Amino acid sequence: MRKKKVAILASTGMVGRRYVSILSSHPYFEISCVAGHESTGKRYGDIVKDEGLNIGYAADLLIKPTKPEAIDADLIFSPLPTEAARRIEPLFAKAGFNVITDASAHRMESDVPLIIPEVNPEHLRLIDYQKAKRKWDGAIVATPNCTATALALVLKPIHELLHVRKVIVSTMQAVSGAGYPGVPSLDIIDNVIPYIENEEEKVQSEPLKILGTIKSNKIEDADIEINAMCHRVPTTDGHMESIYLETESEADPEKVTKALDEFIGLPQRLNLPSAPKKPIIVMQDKDRPQVRIDRYAGTIPGMSVVVGRVRKGRSNNSIMLTMLSHNTIRGAAGSTVLTAELMLNQGYLS
Amino acid sequence: MRKKKVAILASTGMVGRRYVSILSSHPYFEISCVAGHESTGKRYGDIVKDEGLNIGYAADLLIKPTKPEAIDADLIFSPLPTEAARRIEPLFAKAGFNVITDASAHRMESDVPLIIPEVNPEHLRLIDYQKAKRKWDGAIVATPNCTATALALVLKPIHELLHVRKVIVSTMQAVSGAGYPGVPSLDIIDNVIPYIENEEEKVQSEPLKILGTIKSNKIEDADIEINAMCHRVPTTDGHMESIYLETESEADPEKVTKALDEFIGLPQRLNLPSAPKKPIIVMQDKDRPQVRIDRYAGTIPGMSVVVGRVRKGRSNNSIMLTMLSHNTIRGAAGSTVLTAELMLNQGYLS
Amino acid sequence: MRKKKVAILASTGMVGRRYVSILSSHPYFEISCVAGHESTGKRYGDIVKDEGLNIGYAADLLIKPTKPEAIDADLIFSPLPTEAARRIEPLFAKAGFNVITDASAHRMESDVPLIIPEVNPEHLRLIDYQKAKRKWDGAIVATPNCTATALALVLKPIHELLHVRKVIVSTMQAVSGAGYPGVPSLDIIDNVIPYIENEEEKVQSEPLKILGTIKSNKIEDADIEINAMCHRVPTTDGHMESIYLETESEADPEKVTKALDEFIGLPQRLNLPSAPKKPIIVMQDKDRPQVRIDRYAGTIPGMSVVVGRVRKGRSNNSIMLTMLSHNTIRGAAGSTVLTAELMLNQGYLS
Amino acid sequence: MRKKKVAILASTGMVGRRYVSILSSHPYFEISCVAGHESTGKRYGDIVKDEGLNIGYAADLLIKPTKPEAIDADLIFSPLPTEAARRIEPLFAKAGFNVITDASAHRMESDVPLIIPEVNPEHLRLIDYQKAKRKWDGAIVATPNCTATALALVLKPIHELLHVRKVIVSTMQAVSGAGYPGVPSLDIIDNVIPYIENEEEKVQSEPLKILGTIKSNKIEDADIEINAMCHRVPTTDGHMESIYLETESEADPEKVTKALDEFIGLPQRLNLPSAPKKPIIVMQDKDRPQVRIDRYAGTIPGMSVVVGRVRKGRSNNSIMLTMLSHNTIRGAAGSTVLTAELMLNQGYLS
Repeated sequence: MRKKKVAILASTGMVGRRYVSILSSHPYFEISCVAGHESTGKRYGDIVKDEGLNIGYAADLLIKPTKPEAIDADLIFSPLPTEAARRIEPLFAKAGFNVITDASAHRMESDVPLIIPEVNPEHLRLIDYQKAKRKWDGAIVATPNCTATALALVLKPIHELLHVRKVIVSTMQAVSGAGYPGVPSLDIIDNVIPYIENEEEKVQSEPLKILGTIKSNKIEDADIEINAMCHRVPTTDGHMESIYLETESEADPEKVTKALDEFIGLPQRLNLPSAPKKPIIVMQDKDRPQVRIDRYAGTIPGMSVVVGRVRKGRSNNSIMLTMLSHNTIRGAAGSTVLTAELMLNQGYLS
Repeated sequence: MRKKKVAILASTGMVGRRYVSILSSHPYFEISCVAGHESTGKRYGDIVKDEGLNIGYAADLLIKPTKPEAIDADLIFSPLPTEAARRIEPLFAKAGFNVITDASAHRMESDVPLIIPEVNPEHLRLIDYQKAKRKWDGAIVATPNCTATALALVLKPIHELLHVRKVIVSTMQAVSGAGYPGVPSLDIIDNVIPYIENEEEKVQSEPLKILGTIKSNKIEDADIEINAMCHRVPTTDGHMESIYLETESEADPEKVTKALDEFIGLPQRLNLPSAPKKPIIVMQDKDRPQVRIDRYAGTIPGMSVVVGRVRKGRSNNSIMLTMLSHNTIRGAAGSTVLTAELMLNQGYLS
Repeated sequence: MRKKKVAILASTGMVGRRYVSILSSHPYFEISCVAGHESTGKRYGDIVKDEGLNIGYAADLLIKPTKPEAIDADLIFSPLPTEAARRIEPLFAKAGFNVITDASAHRMESDVPLIIPEVNPEHLRLIDYQKAKRKWDGAIVATPNCTATALALVLKPIHELLHVRKVIVSTMQAVSGAGYPGVPSLDIIDNVIPYIENEEEKVQSEPLKILGTIKSNKIEDADIEINAMCHRVPTTDGHMESIYLETESEADPEKVTKALDEFIGLPQRLNLPSAPKKPIIVMQDKDRPQVRIDRYAGTIPGMSVVVGRVRKGRSNNSIMLTMLSHNTIRGAAGSTVLTAELMLNQGYLS
Repeated sequence: MRKKKVAILASTGMVGRRYVSILSSHPYFEISCVAGHESTGKRYGDIVKDEGLNIGYAADLLIKPTKPEAIDADLIFSPLPTEAARRIEPLFAKAGFNVITDASAHRMESDVPLIIPEVNPEHLRLIDYQKAKRKWDGAIVATPNCTATALALVLKPIHELLHVRKVIVSTMQAVSGAGYPGVPSLDIIDNVIPYIENEEEKVQSEPLKILGTIKSNKIEDADIEINAMCHRVPTTDGHMESIYLETESEADPEKVTKALDEFIGLPQRLNLPSAPKKPIIVMQDKDRPQVRIDRYAGTIPGMSVVVGRVRKGRSNNSIMLTMLSHNTIRGAAGSTVLTAELMLNQGYLS
């Protein structure tokens, strides 16, 4: 199979570099284009210093301007900042490109699929409807917020088992979630910050769309009430989520554990390259998962979420658990690449 | 007024030293006795090096054995470890001493008052009942767990306003809560540990007793369901609690804020020396309280809990808020000294 | 005595706020003017939120533009950034103002006194020469780099005792030294950065001027060879310096300890308000000073440097020691205010 | 080639587990025996929980007592604590075993080779002399202190090039260097501790033996004066050393850089399994190496030391540089395994 050509927008940024690194040695994709706002015309390898990231042949590519007419690709990865994403991504989609975006700009639009490959691969069907409705040759597909991704992934098997009614989630998020330079060190050493801008809104809304079902060409949100309290703590990578949930049926921690442990999705069945053997790893030790020790657990480092301390709350219909996910892998680039693999497999890139 | 004589058990330990430091310059109390397990007979100042703690005249006291017959005091402060407390504190109470203990050993016994001076000063009445029932000349009074203290303090005015039904609290606790040497640094740098031994049980049960009411000489627990998830994070001092609660009546964040902000207790009305002007400080900035910045807020550093981000949850009868308290001051020695001041004022030390 | 009027440039910045806070309750000075680049015309208290800093009556001042004609003051405090300082401070000095600056812009100019009040108060005499030479009615006086300040302070009594020939200093500097937002947290958690821009040059040169002597109206540098290696470590406040030095005479650690311990300067003899009783505190415990524990040691918190582990090196003429200083107090605003007090006392503000 | 049988003492401890993990999948060695102080007779895999460490077939071994008669092996790895090592290791050597030890107990004995495989492989010749002198059938070979190892490795090529006369080294050491539980978190968050027990003595003496030459069956120390100042900083793994050195010949940073960069030793020439392609990696970026980013640099993660900022000091015959090494890999187990590989290759295990 000929590799599909992919282009990366904002390729000199922190997330863009990670895409270049991942995709420069990917079995399905080859980087045909790196785009950027500055340094256009320069050699990518002269602009991006290799700091532990292997950028391979991409070093020799010349940086292109962020314009549809300058790009040749079957798929566009867009880690653009929100405002730029809002403006620029539709231009690419209109020009016939499939765009996968990490930005929040279009996530909640009713015809944009917000995909976690293990959770709602069937939402990719919205692509056809989006193209028809917007009269575009291409389409926009979105990756959810990092914290929302991990939450939705864990809720999926529990919701199927017990119908989740209500969630109270308190997060302890790593500084890499704020990008670079991000959180000043003076703000976080020996400290906890009980606020992350716009984060709680996303955690409260995105999982409902992800866990929703397509009805008449649009998504009907899952009927779950999510209450989120988000905190920044002094860790580098790995978001912890402390989750309390109430279910319609009586909750048995052993059955919940089993459902989490046995959960696999379409990417596992298709054996996609970035699909971890287990999307959810359940630990039994009472003091696990721990951020520094477990953030790379599993067969594809950083792609599994790790759950521990599954236990009953005070009421019969409640469950409490702790969950860890790697915010810049499963919560960002890793998940997006898995979505791209799924789109290719499902015929959306032809 | 002649100062009351106080003795400190385990006086060479970490908390014991703090008692010696606080009480060596206290307007109501004078240290007549420092006791210890080891080093008995030695000069206190030769054993305890002054590391930023001013121990004043106590330096010249000789360390006594931990036996009732060796002690002369109107009141005993006991920061003994749990097992020793279970065994030794009753010996002192039986011998006629009033003992205030930080240990969990006797906290949940039905005739032992578990006191937060601003919350349940009236529970001191259990002392008389305890003496009668146990045929003791003295009595045991207990200080709650640090995390439970701060939670009960914040719940008090909200419960009075709206009747709290259910609480889900997720904590981010400082390493000083584990004592010294406590948490190994290898376990906490760039890490979060989602488990603290026995902590959740205490947080779920102690506030119910504290917020309870005396009925027929025993305490009837408050009818609140508390679900606690406790985490250790890389901070030195100051526990954060992220709190979601459901109330019987509809919850208005402004009214809750007002009730928290205006709350004062008996210690404030009595103007006790260790009583902060405001037991609860409410901050308006959306990213406060923060651990390193706010842990000493208020007129008596470390004695006020600091609340922020009071807001509605997704349902009408819910409130979310963030709270910070200094775990070794309001959560331990500071609170206990305030209880001692209250006991003196209320005539329990005559 | 009527208080002297002082103006603060860049008053809304991080260091400027600290000046406003310190000077708003100072026995010698009153703030007549707060200046700024932005927000001119606005009320200071509306722009600067009170985050633990007490800004008192200064809250009601209106922010003035950074122009000599807009300012009425006997003394100007300038925490301007380097480039702005280079351009703007001479304008104020020319217009007749005495300017004390934290910036490095003019520090090494031969007629600008670079003052540590305990070390080289006699260098203030350069002011007269500077005015004459530059035909200015005012003058510029500079405060050294934070790391250089602490080093020069500790070298002073040792140099007097033994004539220091060579210094090898390795620093472990706190993130607050880089200002705000300064060091990104992703760069420093679980990390050490072995480079601070322009820092080693300053540490190698400024102490030589400070310890120098005035000869024919200019300073002859001290004849010491300083080799500096500067590192950023994950601490909030407080720079550690690990110092090896070689002396002309044989070095006796006890005599060095005594000289450090007994050292006082003119500010101590004059009993100036910001002068700590001991500019240098020597600790005997083998594991001290420590950053978090000792950074506020002494009578004026943050104004004493703390020395420990004074010991011989492998050769007879060598000494090794560890030193801690509070970089934003003794290393910046605190030292500058002490210089202002000295200038007033010595008649330079009339 | 039949694999050689190795036994691991203290196999249930922190370093012991690492040996089991490394050696259970080693091309030259197979674990025939795991010994321990407690849990003897139990299955190794039941005692040692697999926390990210793969212990493979060793899980099924029964733990043996730490006695020569209980052990069957060609080589003994001993990570015993100092006092136990002093007592027990000679018993094994006397009984005919070759013992490689991490402990400091026997390091400085004149007939015990203190080996860094790239630096002084020829010192293994002391084994024969040791056996003869002590009338033992076996022998003790020692691995140096972690900080001394990295220092000696970097000094080796510089010393050969320029003859090093004097070294002043200031270290910033990770908490894992103190073992587990090791440094209490309360002691290190937002802190630096300027003292590590017995560390400076080792850093000042061990490299002299390592860089020494065998004369008449004993080692003549290298003629270098090392002055060490050791500090603990809040990092998990990876010791930084800030090094100033004076040389006999004039020091040219470019030549020093070249000598460091091109340095290889016997393990590289023999292509031993644990030998990194480059024992010393030289970085050009002015702010590298950094602890968290570079501690695993190189072909065998953790086995290369990383050097940066090679520059001249103030005098012509001086060099300053920064160096990072992984203290638990190159500084302990990794180095020891490499020594074992070398001993096997050189015929010492027949």
